[in-house]
Amino acid sequence: MSADQVKNRKPLKFLQPYIDARWGIKNHWYPALFSHEVKEDEVKGIQIAGEPVALRRADGRVYALRDECLHRGVRISARPTCFTKDTISCWYHGFTYDLESGDLCDIIASQEDPLIGKVSLRTYPVEEVNGMIFVFIGDEDYPRQPLAHDVPARVADDYEYRTAYLLDEDTVLLGIRRHCVGNWRLATESGGDPGHFLIHRLSPLVLSQSFSLPLSARLTGPDSVIVNDKEWPKSIALDYDTLEHVMENKRLGVKTYGDTVPAGLNVSLYLPGVLYVENWPTRGLAQYEWYVPADDGHHVYWQVIAATCKTAEERQDFKVQYDNCWEELALKSGFNDDDIFAREATEHFYEDDRGWEEETLFSLDQFVVEWRKLVINHARGIQSPPNSHDQISAHPDGM
Amino acid sequence: MSADQVKNRKPLKFLQPYIDARWGIKNHWYPALFSHEVKEDEVKGIQIAGEPVALRRADGRVYALRDECLHRGVRISARPTCFTKDTISCWYHGFTYDLESGDLCDIIASQEDPLIGKVSLRTYPVEEVNGMIFVFIGDEDYPRQPLAHDVPARVADDYEYRTAYLLDEDTVLLGIRRHCVGNWRLATESGGDPGHFLIHRLSPLVLSQSFSLPLSARLTGPDSVIVNDKEWPKSIALDYDTLEHVMENKRLGVKTYGDTVPAGLNVSLYLPGVLYVENWPTRGLAQYEWYVPADDGHHVYWQVIAATCKTAEERQDFKVQYDNCWEELALKSGFNDDDIFAREATEHFYEDDRGWEEETLFSLDQFVVEWRKLVINHARGIQSPPNSHDQISAHPDGM
Amino acid sequence: MSADQVKNRKPLKFLQPYIDARWGIKNHWYPALFSHEVKEDEVKGIQIAGEPVALRRADGRVYALRDECLHRGVRISARPTCFTKDTISCWYHGFTYDLESGDLCDIIASQEDPLIGKVSLRTYPVEEVNGMIFVFIGDEDYPRQPLAHDVPARVADDYEYRTAYLLDEDTVLLGIRRHCVGNWRLATESGGDPGHFLIHRLSPLVLSQSFSLPLSARLTGPDSVIVNDKEWPKSIALDYDTLEHVMENKRLGVKTYGDTVPAGLNVSLYLPGVLYVENWPTRGLAQYEWYVPADDGHHVYWQVIAATCKTAEERQDFKVQYDNCWEELALKSGFNDDDIFAREATEHFYEDDRGWEEETLFSLDQFVVEWRKLVINHARGIQSPPNSHDQISAHPDGM
Repeated sequence: MSADQVKNRKPLKFLQPYIDARWGIKNHWYPALFSHEVKEDEVKGIQIAGEPVALRRADGRVYALRDECLHRGVRISARPTCFTKDTISCWYHGFTYDLESGDLCDIIASQEDPLIGKVSLRTYPVEEVNGMIFVFIGDEDYPRQPLAHDVPARVADDYEYRTAYLLDEDTVLLGIRRHCVGNWRLATESGGDPGHFLIHRLSPLVLSQSFSLPLSARLTGPDSVIVNDKEWPKSIALDYDTLEHVMENKRLGVKTYGDTVPAGLNVSLYLPGVLYVENWPTRGLAQYEWYVPADDGHHVYWQVIAATCKTAEERQDFKVQYDNCWEELALKSGFNDDDIFAREATEHFYEDDRGWEEETLFSLDQFVVEWRKLVINHARGIQSPPNSHDQISAHPDGM
Repeated sequence: MSADQVKNRKPLKFLQPYIDARWGIKNHWYPALFSHEVKEDEVKGIQIAGEPVALRRADGRVYALRDECLHRGVRISARPTCFTKDTISCWYHGFTYDLESGDLCDIIASQEDPLIGKVSLRTYPVEEVNGMIFVFIGDEDYPRQPLAHDVPARVADDYEYRTAYLLDEDTVLLGIRRHCVGNWRLATESGGDPGHFLIHRLSPLVLSQSFSLPLSARLTGPDSVIVNDKEWPKSIALDYDTLEHVMENKRLGVKTYGDTVPAGLNVSLYLPGVLYVENWPTRGLAQYEWYVPADDGHHVYWQVIAATCKTAEERQDFKVQYDNCWEELALKSGFNDDDIFAREATEHFYEDDRGWEEETLFSLDQFVVEWRKLVINHARGIQSPPNSHDQISAHPDGM
Repeated sequence: MSADQVKNRKPLKFLQPYIDARWGIKNHWYPALFSHEVKEDEVKGIQIAGEPVALRRADGRVYALRDECLHRGVRISARPTCFTKDTISCWYHGFTYDLESGDLCDIIASQEDPLIGKVSLRTYPVEEVNGMIFVFIGDEDYPRQPLAHDVPARVADDYEYRTAYLLDEDTVLLGIRRHCVGNWRLATESGGDPGHFLIHRLSPLVLSQSFSLPLSARLTGPDSVIVNDKEWPKSIALDYDTLEHVMENKRLGVKTYGDTVPAGLNVSLYLPGVLYVENWPTRGLAQYEWYVPADDGHHVYWQVIAATCKTAEERQDFKVQYDNCWEELALKSGFNDDDIFAREATEHFYEDDRGWEEETLFSLDQFVVEWRKLVINHARGIQSPPNSHDQISAHPDGM
């Protein structure tokens, strides 16, 4: 960076709440596990936005409690120990909690202990839909929000390129999740980025289809990024119809392999960090991606393909297609692995917050900037670092 | 943790010296190595309470010196280099120290150097008994204490369940030591914990014997924890005869496999962190455990079984028994490996000192609390972190 | 360390600029890569003194630019992407830089972007000589210095033991480089250290030759270390003819294997950290070593053997000799691997700067002390830690 550029460093006051959000935003719904990952009576431990969460399924229903025993702080999920359908016990001294309330209702090592009934483990609201388990992460006293407010909105029925809605009964979701290096903000920003197609120029998915991704989707004006911030779910969207698709750079001799772009492709990004790509990886399907903060340097990358399947046969067909094509060609080596590479590559520049000050944005970063504004103005809260005694006072309304 | 619980955080002033003792307590005897680990002329390097120590055996006797050459600070033990029986040389430039005094008595690279005779390497008192080498770690000018003051006391000769005394001539000690994750305080606290038996419910040692451990040893009153803090060695002890052994929890449907508890089982914990379990792993034997601080996140876990053997035949019998049963069944996969798992599990909660403030103790933790008081009031000093220029002024008498 | 020694700690004010130089000294030439490591059109990324540098060869010439895209800070070299001979493109969004000027001349994702032509990537001066690529690392506005000022000086033509000069046309350089643990200062200090020969006492190179290294080269007076600080290149040198070679220590019973020392051996150390050993590993050859700072805990250890070869046949002979003997016997297991072991061993003592205060220097460390003075008084600048916003004001003239 030259001396001039150093002098021109932006004032970052505006961006501060976003910089503070390195551990995630709170009072939102996040995907926790796929349903098949917690079978009846199983206990699984995960971490979202720095919070350890234990999930247990009992009589079909999934419960979520803080995965840290009140006694000496061990992960309850480390050695799943349940003796009844309505409790979960810590494997160490037998502190036993009511699944529903989190109340300490027994201690195996001290059945008449005065502590019983006096303390409670934190619990979290859970919703399970179409094979995915969602957990509401945030302040214990924050009013529970509808799950529909934190997932991509339903598209109008008469829209020519209509794809499946996540919460519909006839929607089938198939996908994977991976624990990735990199802060959730960088991953989320990369998800909808209209300028990053160069990394996919030679991706097998692109070369194997009848379409090409353009070298870039040039934003022709302020309308190219639509901000939906009046009603929940809140989002920003790229309207591909208003974009100029650049297929060639003559000066440098770079060209896309094909000439046409995918029909009906729409890209939008929702709070708390959900990418929605319609008619992708092929017409009629949709791809959802979540970049769930784990800690300040890792996120869980959820990649889910959605289809509307009205019959058992359609479900079976979609599953065969997914297993034999899309998982590898779209979600893994054929396309998204390149995105993972790119996200990890930005981590170093931002990990000590230098990047926010030294980055040099260009015109297509309008999308990234609008996303940051959406987080700053509409996230329901900024997650404090774990173990921090000073809460970050970041309620968006007060900013 | 709920908002209420956060508000009820304990004042920790009382506990502060214990919290400061993350690198160990000083001016005490710690086991360093088994005798067979330092053969004649061998040099071995270890670390106790952050202090690097080199041990060398010459003419049968073991010497201990600070394992950091005065010149450029390398570990002398990294490339053992001894040219005479009464010296140890640094392998790099040949700084040569007198084994007894630590005085710099030669420099191979500069035989007439003015530095010779002017500086000394720190030495440590050493005692070797029954196959174990002990080193006195602490302030250079602190008066040497008797080893007998830092190991479990001799039991009265006429005690029905009498087991071997560590320092007796006819005592045989067989065991192992392991470098484990976790601070020495958490390991020590877990050692004598009367409430942790749930983790051993299905341990092979327990299922293979005629006895069971209870689900817990309920403390029936203040007498259940005996504090011996008048004379050295200082300790706390559980008297199993005064405890209520809980064998079942009907509400949760948990039960011990057998109905009787081990005869003569007594558990006591001595400064500087030595667990003494009488009549364990079986009647007539005793198990000693040390949790020697290595650094602030690791300890060396010593597990030693003691027997009284009056003849060579008895020694041989005990060795056969140990090799073919107790090492695996008692010290490793049959029992103590579960303790190692449990200790490591608490490390995260306490590693930034959050646990001391947020832990929720219950009635059986009276034992842990008395142990902490013993350390706070009677440890001969708190070890400063290595490289710290500000000494922690923690002489117990002044507290 | 005894209480007395602690009290006698040296005042370190004098040494402070040297202690500050943990990331290297700046405005000097450093070797970056061997020529064969960057073939035509290849891009390679390295790090010198904390600065990421991308090297690209185009039409035979090597260019060096800061290896951090202005946009989002990724390493440009992570996925080499070049479309024309005079540019280098970032693989992520296609930010394209002019190789010569570093100017942003195109963005593939946004060909008409207003940012084009407005910003520049930092470039570095490059020189390539005899198979080595050198880069000038330092302040962007610092006047470029001649490479000859930063490499060992030419020896007089009529000197009996004359060896090859690095920059001569008929000089052939063969060698290796390795990424090693340890700060560059400790590595450099060890390079010319006249007191460290004990570690080479049993080295295969020494035992296989007709000469021995002495146990030490005792400095007989102030003349033994010659300081050349008037003209560039600046250096300190040991004159082996004025040294007393110690071949035996009778008290300890240590003796060198042979009786004679190598003829014409001269050791000198140049800014910015280049060791020059004449007539080594055998008469007529010379060994160069650089200890190039990578970060504050690692350096790149360059080991190069130089020969004068007037004909293609001589070049071939030297190459056969190097491949079949010197690389293994001199640079690797036969000799220098012991130096790497020794350097790594000092790292722990100095990594938190404790060593500078607690080290105990002896008479032979006069060489080390003169080297430190040379750095403090004549380095062209002290490198700031990366990402630090406060520059270390360490221009040597002002000290």
